[in-house]
Amino acid sequence: MNGSDGCRRIYVDNAATTKMSQTAIHAMLPYMDGIYGNPSSLHSEGQRASEALVNARERIARCLGCMAREITFTSGGSEADNQAIVSAARLGEKKGKKHIISTAFEHHAVLHTLEKLKKEGFDITLLDVHENGLITAKQVEDAIRPETCLVTVMYANNEIGTIQPIAEIGAVCRQKGVLFHTDAVQAAGHLPIDVQKQNIDMLSLSAHKFHGPKGIGVLYAKKGILLTNLIEGGAQERGNRAGTENIPAIMGLAAALEEACAHIDENAQKLIRLRDKLIAGLSEIPHSILNGDAKRRLPGNVNFCFEGIEGESLLLLLDDKGICASSGSACTSGSLDPSHVLLAIGRVHDIAHGSLRLSLSEENTEEEIDDIVKAVKEVVEYLRGISPIWRDLVSGKKEFIIK
Amino acid sequence: MNGSDGCRRIYVDNAATTKMSQTAIHAMLPYMDGIYGNPSSLHSEGQRASEALVNARERIARCLGCMAREITFTSGGSEADNQAIVSAARLGEKKGKKHIISTAFEHHAVLHTLEKLKKEGFDITLLDVHENGLITAKQVEDAIRPETCLVTVMYANNEIGTIQPIAEIGAVCRQKGVLFHTDAVQAAGHLPIDVQKQNIDMLSLSAHKFHGPKGIGVLYAKKGILLTNLIEGGAQERGNRAGTENIPAIMGLAAALEEACAHIDENAQKLIRLRDKLIAGLSEIPHSILNGDAKRRLPGNVNFCFEGIEGESLLLLLDDKGICASSGSACTSGSLDPSHVLLAIGRVHDIAHGSLRLSLSEENTEEEIDDIVKAVKEVVEYLRGISPIWRDLVSGKKEFIIK
Repeated sequence: MNGSDGCRRIYVDNAATTKMSQTAIHAMLPYMDGIYGNPSSLHSEGQRASEALVNARERIARCLGCMAREITFTSGGSEADNQAIVSAARLGEKKGKKHIISTAFEHHAVLHTLEKLKKEGFDITLLDVHENGLITAKQVEDAIRPETCLVTVMYANNEIGTIQPIAEIGAVCRQKGVLFHTDAVQAAGHLPIDVQKQNIDMLSLSAHKFHGPKGIGVLYAKKGILLTNLIEGGAQERGNRAGTENIPAIMGLAAALEEACAHIDENAQKLIRLRDKLIAGLSEIPHSILNGDAKRRLPGNVNFCFEGIEGESLLLLLDDKGICASSGSACTSGSLDPSHVLLAIGRVHDIAHGSLRLSLSEENTEEEIDDIVKAVKEVVEYLRGISPIWRDLVSGKKEFIIK
Repeated sequence: MNGSDGCRRIYVDNAATTKMSQTAIHAMLPYMDGIYGNPSSLHSEGQRASEALVNARERIARCLGCMAREITFTSGGSEADNQAIVSAARLGEKKGKKHIISTAFEHHAVLHTLEKLKKEGFDITLLDVHENGLITAKQVEDAIRPETCLVTVMYANNEIGTIQPIAEIGAVCRQKGVLFHTDAVQAAGHLPIDVQKQNIDMLSLSAHKFHGPKGIGVLYAKKGILLTNLIEGGAQERGNRAGTENIPAIMGLAAALEEACAHIDENAQKLIRLRDKLIAGLSEIPHSILNGDAKRRLPGNVNFCFEGIEGESLLLLLDDKGICASSGSACTSGSLDPSHVLLAIGRVHDIAHGSLRLSLSEENTEEEIDDIVKAVKEVVEYLRGISPIWRDLVSGKKEFIIK
């Protein structure tokens, strides 16, 4: 691909955001330029927008295996996560149930909402994550108490890409009568989703993670679950979310999700091939370790720790070589703290600081993988060459953590 | 203009939503198709998006007379209203101040947020609105108590277009040490705004009301005001609003606001000419009344009540004639209740039901105004001809309310 500066650039930060597909752009344009009515308006211009909204909702529902009325449009994944969790908490506290189960390596949209509820007196259990980046349905089952009102476990982790056993966790929750929400922001469009078969009560997704537009997401909530408004006002979204509906973005989301779901298997096959080639290449670097399970991970996710170097320097030097990558979540990139995800899977601070996330898309090629492997090897070698920590490690003054 | 069905159509529902300007569309496209990075990403693609974000924030701040850091991007006007009011309430309750002053004819994004706070124990004073659709700074002053933490008064009403004395209300609030928020969703881009000169502490606006994109708004909050997050998660927007920034929409907002502000006087002059011509034409209809002050109203707003008819039928017949209008707020169009705005200015139920809002844009023409007047006259006459209420009125069985 070419970067916006015209130079050849390899973009492997698709977990942060993706390039919009032409399908999604072309689905939006007519609603930006022509059919611009407010879907709440009674006149023809409004009704045309309203028909588009109905159509998009039905198409998205088909992709998720739910009913159109179970779809609420939000401004993105974070809003959907917040609304799902707050809604379950409000339903729970009415019944005197103020215990919520989640995991230590959720996205901050989940963790920070849980912290807010904790201050209100909710009891929060964050399940330990195994070193391979997975939790089990058994852990969830063991943590459920009579006062548990919600289990929220992410579908696939945004940093290390590990895919949780969602259907089994859902089955446990259903059997115990506890609401189950999954943050599927990284999974939607990349992994098959069927909310009925997987026993999912609530699910969040965000369009810009699967080549759709930014600023639009979906909260699926099973029929009968009363949502709490985060945004009060007009009666849009059956009274669950006020604000004029963002029809262009909604049309873009529907088109992008349909396109992704139609090619989900072939895309996964291609990505897994690229991913495993990249993992194999980077594994050749001494004192490096793959984060997260080698197989139960997103088709496009690669995440490594390299001992003796600092993730930020790695990123900047890779960027100089035309490679757009990440050390972890973009949402926390300003922070100097090591990734809470890597700490959750047992990486010590020093190691967690030297992380690299490469998240692929279908547009990446075998040649790009070769280029990335070559570049990462060079940059790691260079950084280690100027690293005092590395000197201590090779001289035996300090002991290697990654053998 | 031509409608999306290709037929000639007169769109006069610009208070519900506007057609995007070509300027706004062209400002968005490069960020949809090329510069798609996540502004939180450290690599070049991310940094290009980040530069755009900084640029947009500065340009918007210039339009409002504030500093860039005082701008928080939201998903629209409703979210901005909610966040402003909740933030002021949280700051207030920390000091034991739980009294909020507003008006009876605010948008539901304000009124419903106040209702939520009332349930939490806040004391809410809704000021009476004069028959001309205005409140006074004196009313605000008289209502302020030692425990008042917020005054929130809309800049211009979304149904009847009346413009409140914002600078004077702001001066009263500043003098009394009470935070002042204004919902400027209908005003921004149409009326000059200078938050410093007008003593505004917080202000909400929405791009799609001034030919910008849907799904994006701004909350201005004066430096030093601690905002409460509605959406928890990543550290975007200085930690005040989580979620990947919607860069294309933000660029569209900046372009649309700049364009609107650059032409604010000439647009207003044109619109006032069209508006007053339309008001004069519709005033010829017997037993009709203009809602809201004749002069202190938005340049593009016309709102009438016609006795003996029902607003919804009026709209549908006007739509048949190619005229897209509204009976009031689009956000409440599904509701059978008469407009709370018209009730607030003293219209009785029967009269409030027969309302028509025509909200013009700079694209409307003199010829369109003539066509609208002709069409409304015909439709009102037709509807009165089949109305049993009208028969009772002309026979003297019932008394006219609008003389």
